[in-house]
Amino acid sequence: MSQGKFITFEGGEGTGKTTQSRLLSERLQKEGYDVVLTREPGGTQAGEALRDVFVSHEGQNWPLSAQMLFMFTARSLHYEHIIKPEIEIGKIVICDRFADSTLAYQGYALGGNIDQFESLKKMVLGDFEPDLTFMFDIDPFEGLIRASGRDNQEDTFEEKDISFHEKLRQAYLDIAENNPDRCHVIDAAEEIDTISTQIWDKVKEVL
Amino acid sequence: MSQGKFITFEGGEGTGKTTQSRLLSERLQKEGYDVVLTREPGGTQAGEALRDVFVSHEGQNWPLSAQMLFMFTARSLHYEHIIKPEIEIGKIVICDRFADSTLAYQGYALGGNIDQFESLKKMVLGDFEPDLTFMFDIDPFEGLIRASGRDNQEDTFEEKDISFHEKLRQAYLDIAENNPDRCHVIDAAEEIDTISTQIWDKVKEVL
Repeated sequence: MSQGKFITFEGGEGTGKTTQSRLLSERLQKEGYDVVLTREPGGTQAGEALRDVFVSHEGQNWPLSAQMLFMFTARSLHYEHIIKPEIEIGKIVICDRFADSTLAYQGYALGGNIDQFESLKKMVLGDFEPDLTFMFDIDPFEGLIRASGRDNQEDTFEEKDISFHEKLRQAYLDIAENNPDRCHVIDAAEEIDTISTQIWDKVKEVL
Repeated sequence: MSQGKFITFEGGEGTGKTTQSRLLSERLQKEGYDVVLTREPGGTQAGEALRDVFVSHEGQNWPLSAQMLFMFTARSLHYEHIIKPEIEIGKIVICDRFADSTLAYQGYALGGNIDQFESLKKMVLGDFEPDLTFMFDIDPFEGLIRASGRDNQEDTFEEKDISFHEKLRQAYLDIAENNPDRCHVIDAAEEIDTISTQIWDKVKEVL
């Protein structure tokens, strides 16, 4: 049995990470790997129902402490019921957003309590970290233009002003700089094929 | 302006605490006080939607860590948006279940991590505590018989076996013993009028 892996796709709005996570999933399946493609917040039935509450009740305007608690509640279910058991049986779990997004959005970009983030992360995940994280980086203007063209009802954070999205971009870059072993910054302005080749080259290294 | 107060009603299933919290609310309003009667989990629009997810997705069977995180997420919204601001403008906030229920259910009775409970409590509430807590105590058999007679779709924890409900009863009694200044144990087998008189006498002391 092959060893399970956990690969996360992170970044702001309209960076193309969801598309690339799907492409990677398909490529791995073609190569014969067992893959679970999932997302956060959500990933479990209960977690997706919680996500719906966040979206329909303006979660982006809740106190930051409540937003962090919310994200780690859904993450706890996702980690215990899907991520951990699937990795343990040798699957490759690909996740569209994970803890880095909570640190980037609720932590750095919105100004939440970083100690609270670290404390919740430890509580829910212990020392667990992704084996590989792709940080999708793009000029926020371009990202928002792309995001606005999507058929997406969940524009919770897209409505925030450009300075928020600039902070968010810097947050992801800072997280990548602080975690050079697992994080790889992707220039999301590149062509889809160029990016998927870059990603595949990195993924091959960890398999 | 009168000083706001926070009064909580705690206890297992079928103890009559919800009825008594309503009676106290009505009595206080008759006496001219501004009262907010609320409940947990829930209390806010988003919190009630979160409660619905817990009930409809078998929250009682989630990992205990996720259950605690969930309760403090809803509590954080409730505390920041209702309890704290309403007390600050002098209202008497009466709450059907609060943090003691998380400690009793997810902590003592189900065996969750008490340090995690304390850490989340500190994160969400700081040093905030109720001014007065009524612990409704009844033989679990009698409580479950009463609860089964209610028109209640939310029998999440009622289904658990009697040993759970016995642990739960002891949990509330232990919490009361550890917090003698704010907690008053109510013999829930007494008549409704007897109990409401006992409660009113205690409430008058803190007003």
